[in-house]
Amino acid sequence: MAPKTLDLHQDAALLTAQLVDFPSVSGEEKALADAIETALRQLDHLEILRHGNNVLARTRLGHPERVVLAGHIDTVPIAGNVPSRLDEDGTLWGCGTSDMKSGVAVQLRIAATVTEPNRDLTFVFYDNEEVEAHRNGLGHIARDLPDWMAGDFAVLLEPSSGEVEGGCQGTLRVLLRTVGQRAHSARSWMGENAVHAAAPILNRLAAYEPRRVVIDGLEYREGLNAVRIGGGVAGNVIPDECVVTVNYRYAPDLGEEQALAHVREVFADCGVKELVVDDHSGAALPGLGHPAAAAFMAAVGGTPQPKFGWTDVSRFSALGVPAVNYGPGEPSLAHRVDERVDTAKILHCEERLRSWLTD
Amino acid sequence: MAPKTLDLHQDAALLTAQLVDFPSVSGEEKALADAIETALRQLDHLEILRHGNNVLARTRLGHPERVVLAGHIDTVPIAGNVPSRLDEDGTLWGCGTSDMKSGVAVQLRIAATVTEPNRDLTFVFYDNEEVEAHRNGLGHIARDLPDWMAGDFAVLLEPSSGEVEGGCQGTLRVLLRTVGQRAHSARSWMGENAVHAAAPILNRLAAYEPRRVVIDGLEYREGLNAVRIGGGVAGNVIPDECVVTVNYRYAPDLGEEQALAHVREVFADCGVKELVVDDHSGAALPGLGHPAAAAFMAAVGGTPQPKFGWTDVSRFSALGVPAVNYGPGEPSLAHRVDERVDTAKILHCEERLRSWLTD
Repeated sequence: MAPKTLDLHQDAALLTAQLVDFPSVSGEEKALADAIETALRQLDHLEILRHGNNVLARTRLGHPERVVLAGHIDTVPIAGNVPSRLDEDGTLWGCGTSDMKSGVAVQLRIAATVTEPNRDLTFVFYDNEEVEAHRNGLGHIARDLPDWMAGDFAVLLEPSSGEVEGGCQGTLRVLLRTVGQRAHSARSWMGENAVHAAAPILNRLAAYEPRRVVIDGLEYREGLNAVRIGGGVAGNVIPDECVVTVNYRYAPDLGEEQALAHVREVFADCGVKELVVDDHSGAALPGLGHPAAAAFMAAVGGTPQPKFGWTDVSRFSALGVPAVNYGPGEPSLAHRVDERVDTAKILHCEERLRSWLTD
Repeated sequence: MAPKTLDLHQDAALLTAQLVDFPSVSGEEKALADAIETALRQLDHLEILRHGNNVLARTRLGHPERVVLAGHIDTVPIAGNVPSRLDEDGTLWGCGTSDMKSGVAVQLRIAATVTEPNRDLTFVFYDNEEVEAHRNGLGHIARDLPDWMAGDFAVLLEPSSGEVEGGCQGTLRVLLRTVGQRAHSARSWMGENAVHAAAPILNRLAAYEPRRVVIDGLEYREGLNAVRIGGGVAGNVIPDECVVTVNYRYAPDLGEEQALAHVREVFADCGVKELVVDDHSGAALPGLGHPAAAAFMAAVGGTPQPKFGWTDVSRFSALGVPAVNYGPGEPSLAHRVDERVDTAKILHCEERLRSWLTD
């Protein structure tokens, strides 16, 4: 059975196992949020705030710099892979091992053990990351308590194989609609085929040359793709509508308006009757030029990589806080039945962050 | 309430009203089939056969020519438009007035009153025309009792505004599948977009020039159209499959194999991974050159028109029997809540057929 309290004296690997055995599927994070809050309230050096099932903690040491360590406490649905299981070779198996209870364990260990950090620290534990964006706890904090996300630099402990992934690309999804006129397909000259009218859109997509953009030494790779196409009424009817859903993934040198303007330009003169923005999340600059970021890079080592997918780092970026992904989990194992994590990477991550925050 | 017996002494217009008041939505034709069978069994000059809810009748006079008069007895679902209503101007309103109880009334009147026809006659009353092809009663008769469809010429009394519509175009539906490779849309270069791969198919369709073909003086107009397109997995995934459903409506100078070969040729070198035949119903030649057809045209007058849509005449054609559509109903009013028929056209149709079969 799930334990009722968390033991922050264990190392981050053992603590990860304890967190995995504490089921917290999106929407059902209360028990784990309670346990995290209870454990953190034992620590005298931290100010604690509970907001829904989000738990916030920070030091108030008056340092000139503040950094934020953030992570989500929810997981995708359990698929027979809880409780956790530790192999002899140090592999820990179970739902959330990589995404991202290993990261949360590192956050908790830093909170518990780095009582006199060289920079002020804010810890954010949030809910509902694995579900619709409007439920995302970090989004709620950004809206309701932006002061708790303020800082010079933020680290999101999402799975990144222990590599630093800087910034993130933006993602814009638009619906391109062509229209025609219905008719019986036996008398097709009476109608106008909206699916045929989508040919120029697909031609434009097939011919598109995506940009590669270098920022802070990181090469971002864009993409412009149809992710869906649909049209048709019945097997004997000329379609009067076709919708191509296009996803533009863009480098962080573009703002949201510039990205949308680019897409409009690409599909100008393609016979698009209507262009509707279905979804839009801006990009985030890596911000590796900041001194706190430079010190972080020196401590964790390695070569930073660009982040192609959209992540919650952009919620920090939108508030003017440069942010990176850096966590012990393996992203390619996230959401899988055979999800697992290398416990050595958890310990390494814990050690590198401690080094950055104490040296 | 619906009457239990049919009165074949009324003219075809009054009989149409009585048939409309006898609901017979597809699958629920039994009561009407019973009434038709009972009425026909009163007629000594006819041999009768019941097959499911299909009713067959024929003379055996030993004439050198035999013609078939066929019609379906089912209707689309009633939409508050039964019982029938006769306007002062002679318009009869109600479900099935045009499609095609007016035609059935003419068949029954000819059966009842032309007791010594100049050609042998076969009457086919069949069920389930308005639903899936495999339920179609005429299809069952063609399979089980082809002898009852044999003849030199057939008239299907489907609504045709009192015009003769010759033959019918074939209809071939194929699924054209393109394939790609899934990938997260943030790393689209890891995948291959199957929707983009459909561009050449849509280009070919958009550029296609359909044929016009004259046969027996009738001009058929072909069409090649996408009737459906679908592809896409999720809003952030590169689609690995796209299917374009294409409908080829072809003139009766092409056989089924030729039609399919043409479609394969059109989409050669378009990156189609797989072409699947979804549905195929062959065309029917008008056959207006046959003497029985010529006599029919002389009797009914007017200029024959080509039939663009596929109809059950092709079931006769497949058995080597040339066939036309000729009925008093108005095709554009079929399946409508305000379905109606001009009773003068019913009487005219009855008179013309009687003239053809008695002169």
